[in-house]
Amino acid sequence: MSITEARGLESETLDPALVATLERAKTASRALSTVTADVKNRGLLAIADAVRSNTAEIIRANAVDLDRGRENGLAAGLVDRLRLDESRLEGLATATELIASLVDPVGEVLRGKVLPNGLQLTQVRVPFGVVGAIYEARPNVTVDIAALALKSGNAVVLRGGSAAEDTNRVLVRVLQEALESVGLPRDAVQTIDEFGRRGATELMRARGLVDVLIPRGSAQLIDTVVRESKVPVIETGAGVVHVFVDESADEGWAVDIVHNAKVQRPSVCNALETLLVHRSAADRILPSVLADLRGAGVTIHADEATRALFADAVPATDDDWSTEYMSLDISVRIVDDLDAALDHIRRYSTRHTESIISNDVRSTERFLAEVDSAVVMVNASTRFTDGGEFGFGAEVGISTQKLHARGPMGLPELTSTKWIVRGAGQVRG
Amino acid sequence: MSITEARGLESETLDPALVATLERAKTASRALSTVTADVKNRGLLAIADAVRSNTAEIIRANAVDLDRGRENGLAAGLVDRLRLDESRLEGLATATELIASLVDPVGEVLRGKVLPNGLQLTQVRVPFGVVGAIYEARPNVTVDIAALALKSGNAVVLRGGSAAEDTNRVLVRVLQEALESVGLPRDAVQTIDEFGRRGATELMRARGLVDVLIPRGSAQLIDTVVRESKVPVIETGAGVVHVFVDESADEGWAVDIVHNAKVQRPSVCNALETLLVHRSAADRILPSVLADLRGAGVTIHADEATRALFADAVPATDDDWSTEYMSLDISVRIVDDLDAALDHIRRYSTRHTESIISNDVRSTERFLAEVDSAVVMVNASTRFTDGGEFGFGAEVGISTQKLHARGPMGLPELTSTKWIVRGAGQVRG
Repeated sequence: MSITEARGLESETLDPALVATLERAKTASRALSTVTADVKNRGLLAIADAVRSNTAEIIRANAVDLDRGRENGLAAGLVDRLRLDESRLEGLATATELIASLVDPVGEVLRGKVLPNGLQLTQVRVPFGVVGAIYEARPNVTVDIAALALKSGNAVVLRGGSAAEDTNRVLVRVLQEALESVGLPRDAVQTIDEFGRRGATELMRARGLVDVLIPRGSAQLIDTVVRESKVPVIETGAGVVHVFVDESADEGWAVDIVHNAKVQRPSVCNALETLLVHRSAADRILPSVLADLRGAGVTIHADEATRALFADAVPATDDDWSTEYMSLDISVRIVDDLDAALDHIRRYSTRHTESIISNDVRSTERFLAEVDSAVVMVNASTRFTDGGEFGFGAEVGISTQKLHARGPMGLPELTSTKWIVRGAGQVRG
Repeated sequence: MSITEARGLESETLDPALVATLERAKTASRALSTVTADVKNRGLLAIADAVRSNTAEIIRANAVDLDRGRENGLAAGLVDRLRLDESRLEGLATATELIASLVDPVGEVLRGKVLPNGLQLTQVRVPFGVVGAIYEARPNVTVDIAALALKSGNAVVLRGGSAAEDTNRVLVRVLQEALESVGLPRDAVQTIDEFGRRGATELMRARGLVDVLIPRGSAQLIDTVVRESKVPVIETGAGVVHVFVDESADEGWAVDIVHNAKVQRPSVCNALETLLVHRSAADRILPSVLADLRGAGVTIHADEATRALFADAVPATDDDWSTEYMSLDISVRIVDDLDAALDHIRRYSTRHTESIISNDVRSTERFLAEVDSAVVMVNASTRFTDGGEFGFGAEVGISTQKLHARGPMGLPELTSTKWIVRGAGQVRG
């Protein structure tokens, strides 16, 4: 669809200043689409250097956002996500360097053959073009998405939200200066925070000017983008994440994995929310698992059967099973068997990550085959659902939809494909 | 997102009878997702047999639709698409047999590695689940989508439209009987035509009950689905398809390719709509190309420069450049050079298929790199953009979006992926 037509799709008139921003992004994306990996990697190393050399200024801006967040009563989980300290900035710089070391996805030949009539067919990876991101209180996303987009030949347009606006303003300037220092277009990374909430709304309507839109943040923000957007969206979803402790589970693994999945960083989407325990394993395993959680300050919302074994728990309500706490809370339920666990997961899971702790092949294979989630694990902490852990360098987000990308999104997930057909005068019979 | 939550997304209440249909589809899809390729292939061969043995009844039902279409003044292109004769039904049966012979996409391992901490990571193809299709006056789509969906482990819910309702009613019954004859669930293929237009509207709102929605038909139908749907959509787009005759083009190839691309089947989306000709090739090539088209009954809508060379043409208006005629009409423009051709294509193309006729490597490589379309060709007829021609057996449609699938969609395009992680008690540090 041509740009002219695409605009015609919507009767609303987009803000001309925003359209100009998006058209600059499109122009930058055309330049980026044919830039060699060598040049893009120089840009990434310049970004890593710039993040390091501007650490003090970034942290000063972040302190302003943090103060305002605390004044506005931002939840503890969000304050944690909003914070950039030296170690997190160093982590972003290192991730950017790792992305530079990865193979360029653009131009990769995915399939190819010669048809019976002699036509040569190849399917190659190409950049999307312009990637839009709408997120909130996560300034690390600014650097992660900019770095992944640059490597995959895309321009990005960022709406980072008011909670992180001071941090993001500085970060975008730092990124743009780094791009310019190696001769890349500064418009490859732009913020539309100056357009406020209206900027996000209009970005969702800019079909033809934005090739894909990625929302990251609360379930409410994601739902709004999924519902409202006329631009294709990759849903990065909330995680009501389950661990199922099977009859044959190793007690030590159960304690360690549940502790790690719940306690290590409760504010993120791959943290555990609901623990399901096989009735035959409850007496043996549940007391030590729950005592460990209680010792770590976790509030336990449990069904009656669990409370009979472990008194220090509050009664779980129906709402608990579909709640993403993002805090030191967990819901716990004893189930009759694997089938009951699969039923519970089918009903309440957000299809992000589920893990089974088991030593029984029939159980683990059924769990892997029947749980319909982006990531399904055996005997591992759900916290591993992460682009960095998977070796992607960083992640654009974790897709919980089935279209295009599912699970942690790295470089290939920021590309589309194109069919190339080379002939010698062939016509169809 | 769980089904319960998904329904909560929309305040409208879906028709309970439609919800029941969609839930039957989901149940069938769960059964299909673990069926072996052997069983699915037996189902496909049963479908091919059933299409052949019910040819007379299908053609009788089709005649009713064709009569009604003619009475209602359906355009000639649509009548052509609506028609099923013995040869087209044999083609559908043969395509279904070919799909049976293709490798099962489900379970294919796309990537895999062992992480430094010992976690074993594999990314495997899995079915979407429930695929919805909204189309009009194309009963061949009923068989094509059902066959591709069965092979890829998906259930389908079809809204085939009123123009083809008699044909589709018979086809769906024939498909369901074939599925049952080999022990597969008949609910794997269902029509919602009995719900009328409201069925299509509600299908677009059934987020969580339908995993992906594929519209096929007029630009207006596709635009409506893209705008209205809360379910992820794959846009199968209109084709304002271009051929560019470069300075160095071979005259014979130009005549043959332009003739084939325009005349062989003008009612389909890969047919040529706009011919661009390099100014330096116009005198040498254009008269014979246009004389050939004229001889085939094509109406030529041309710019002034073309009309100076070829009098038997009507003046092109601005609208012509963005029109998908779907008839024996073509727009023709002489351009100064490759850059002007690329500019024209950037402005008016629907990003479906473009082809360059040229013997100059610099031109062909630039054309392949810079034209941002699903399929880009050198010295070949645009009519080859087709799942059957590409060796996919059939096609679900031709995607003109960049997300998930681009170009002709076959079996892999009807799948999602899932990450499998196998550990031995690993936790994140």
